[in-house]
Amino acid sequence: MKKFKGFAAAALCTAMVVSGVTYVHEAEAGPSKNEKGKSKIENVIFMIPDGYSAAYATNYRIFKGKETVLDPLLVGMMQTNSSDNWVTDSAAAGTAMATGYKTNNGMVGVTPNGRTVESILEAADDAGKSTGLVATSTITHATPAVFASHVQSRGSEAAIAQQMVNEVDVLFGGGKSNFLPESLGGKQEERNLIEESEENGYAIVEDRDDLMDLNGKEKKILGLFADGAMAPELDREMTEEPSLAEMTSTAIDSLSTNKKGFFLMVEGSQIDWAGHAHDAAWAMHDSEAFEEAVEEALAYAKKDKKTLVVIAGDHDTGGMSVGGYDEYNANVEILRNVEATGEFMASQMNKKRGNARKVVQEHTGLKLTAEEVGRIQTAPEGEVGMTINTIVSERAYVGWSTSAHTGVDVPVYAYGPGSGLFHGLLDNTDMPELMAEAMKIDF
Amino acid sequence: MKKFKGFAAAALCTAMVVSGVTYVHEAEAGPSKNEKGKSKIENVIFMIPDGYSAAYATNYRIFKGKETVLDPLLVGMMQTNSSDNWVTDSAAAGTAMATGYKTNNGMVGVTPNGRTVESILEAADDAGKSTGLVATSTITHATPAVFASHVQSRGSEAAIAQQMVNEVDVLFGGGKSNFLPESLGGKQEERNLIEESEENGYAIVEDRDDLMDLNGKEKKILGLFADGAMAPELDREMTEEPSLAEMTSTAIDSLSTNKKGFFLMVEGSQIDWAGHAHDAAWAMHDSEAFEEAVEEALAYAKKDKKTLVVIAGDHDTGGMSVGGYDEYNANVEILRNVEATGEFMASQMNKKRGNARKVVQEHTGLKLTAEEVGRIQTAPEGEVGMTINTIVSERAYVGWSTSAHTGVDVPVYAYGPGSGLFHGLLDNTDMPELMAEAMKIDF
Repeated sequence: MKKFKGFAAAALCTAMVVSGVTYVHEAEAGPSKNEKGKSKIENVIFMIPDGYSAAYATNYRIFKGKETVLDPLLVGMMQTNSSDNWVTDSAAAGTAMATGYKTNNGMVGVTPNGRTVESILEAADDAGKSTGLVATSTITHATPAVFASHVQSRGSEAAIAQQMVNEVDVLFGGGKSNFLPESLGGKQEERNLIEESEENGYAIVEDRDDLMDLNGKEKKILGLFADGAMAPELDREMTEEPSLAEMTSTAIDSLSTNKKGFFLMVEGSQIDWAGHAHDAAWAMHDSEAFEEAVEEALAYAKKDKKTLVVIAGDHDTGGMSVGGYDEYNANVEILRNVEATGEFMASQMNKKRGNARKVVQEHTGLKLTAEEVGRIQTAPEGEVGMTINTIVSERAYVGWSTSAHTGVDVPVYAYGPGSGLFHGLLDNTDMPELMAEAMKIDF
Repeated sequence: MKKFKGFAAAALCTAMVVSGVTYVHEAEAGPSKNEKGKSKIENVIFMIPDGYSAAYATNYRIFKGKETVLDPLLVGMMQTNSSDNWVTDSAAAGTAMATGYKTNNGMVGVTPNGRTVESILEAADDAGKSTGLVATSTITHATPAVFASHVQSRGSEAAIAQQMVNEVDVLFGGGKSNFLPESLGGKQEERNLIEESEENGYAIVEDRDDLMDLNGKEKKILGLFADGAMAPELDREMTEEPSLAEMTSTAIDSLSTNKKGFFLMVEGSQIDWAGHAHDAAWAMHDSEAFEEAVEEALAYAKKDKKTLVVIAGDHDTGGMSVGGYDEYNANVEILRNVEATGEFMASQMNKKRGNARKVVQEHTGLKLTAEEVGRIQTAPEGEVGMTINTIVSERAYVGWSTSAHTGVDVPVYAYGPGSGLFHGLLDNTDMPELMAEAMKIDF
């Protein structure tokens, strides 16, 4: 397997040799087996908190007030750069993490010159395993897309939907509109991918109640819970949507009916979006929703004992910091009282935003100063949400250096047999290779 | 040993149990010995790149153009908070890392209520080992101070000097003035700590030539190479000062003459100062100087086989990011051409700063725009260096969120026997305990 890697390709091996440390799973018979990850791993659950760097992990620990579920699983860190940029986007990051190939920002499941490359999900499928993708974005968004489609541009979500459907056994997320005739266009415009899926034996679910009503034995399920993206966790109560944890649990129930095992990718999609918006409360509450999904995966893995759970963000978003604003302070705890996104609060403003103080207090518990109210009232149309988020971030001492991604290495967490393979400093391209090694499948 | 720890105290143990992984050093006879770190470790070299978070590690890798010496040694991460603040200062961070006790920001080697607590250096000394401290700040600055002194306030550098002298076998750094009569004051004002040391059998060295002329058999050496702080690596050529690597190598030569072993702390002090000043080039060049010191420690440890090297920053400084400024880009490579700190360039400005363009181009290779020249020429007195640094950071896409520290978890690196003890997510208070466990000394 030829790789488009940077100089970091050999980091893991070097780590093991230079530091003179080998990793042995205690449940195994002997070290020789384990060094090569040759334990009986049938299932891999790959969980991607999009945008989750060490600053998110630290802020979330403070937000939670105690050790997080991820903390004790920390095994190393991962380099995130893409083929053409030290600062990756989610398409290139995901392509590396799914296929082992670096590509250019924006490209999905193809190399920089456009060659289609196999994903770990596709390899698992070839090995007879069941496969699933769960996300809170559209299920055709970059991160889930890279596991089951191959297009030049991440924007081609309708083309991604056509490649995904009937290939992946369980698909849970948003983006229903991409599966319907009006979005497909051209020669495909008569296709209704949801109806096709139903004809092909998929159970179709559309809301939380549908999901809860499944009997746990459906082998194929298409669950599209919103036309576009699903709701941020902070706003989910106002919808009929299931939580990420509920989708994860149901996906595992379905996929684990296959005796040959399964590969499941679960994305906490909106941690990244919160970072772009500098919405620290959204980031923390979606981190919490992601952690609850991790708990579902761990509960299964602990019982099953043949399941490897690997957790890693694809990059940092926003250059988040723990503290900031030239002071020694962090006050992340106040974000626990925030009950809406900045965008939602912006949508609640009346003319001239005369109710700014009232709206923000109602949804955050914060009493704004006259200066802060003034900033909200004079913000340009379209920047009201960001202005509210900036004020809340200042109050919480959550710093930001950019509205884009950054290129910092991110933490890697792993649980279960084979977790030792992920120790040390990895490159994002190492991920699918190590998972294939753990599952002992061709890749 | 009672600890003032947060909820993270049990992180390491939890990590090992929950993830089901044990760590075995391959050079050892059997796993049972190694799990408890019971290998024959005589020496510990604790290297602290002050302010070095994952963003510094990533940016430095890009700066260097290849894997760093630290990369393959990554074993985990460390929580950095102090007793009274999620964002620590170097005194409280160092106290935790040296004594295993959390304290308040600003306090040195004492608990929040002022009780003196033993440091790992003092415990090593009690066990008959030789001890050393090496820094590029004053040797009485917070990070080295916490290993050999106990004062309420980090500002009491003369008091720190009195406690350090004659207690530590090798002291290399800046801060000569703190050892001379005029700074001691009060009843101590007749003391000259340098003369006292010489009478007590210390070899006294004052510049790089002195250091190089040592025969390698001196058991006690006091090397104070500057009245205040030593020079930033970028400006060192203009001085008679040794490099951090040279000080490290000489300290090891001296300390390793003790058959009972040694404890040495080496600080890359000014990475932090560069972060406060948003001087990305200073940060990268001092990271390089630190890496060269690490190479000296590793060269000794590889040969010796009984030396544990542990490397961890005490906190992040500046909320540095890899990329920033709302773009997907990083251009850290341009910092290779920068040959002076922003402060030095500021000192070279003539009246009205008419030579701003010329000075900056001469020392950075960058051709400033008219807008950038204008920013330098109109900056308030005292902010010229920061303005130059901001421009250089923008050009390099190195982002910053604050001029203070931040509270993000930082990477931990380890090499040699016992390195497995440092895997996973640690708290800063775990550091000296694990080192004592590795050395099998009372603590």
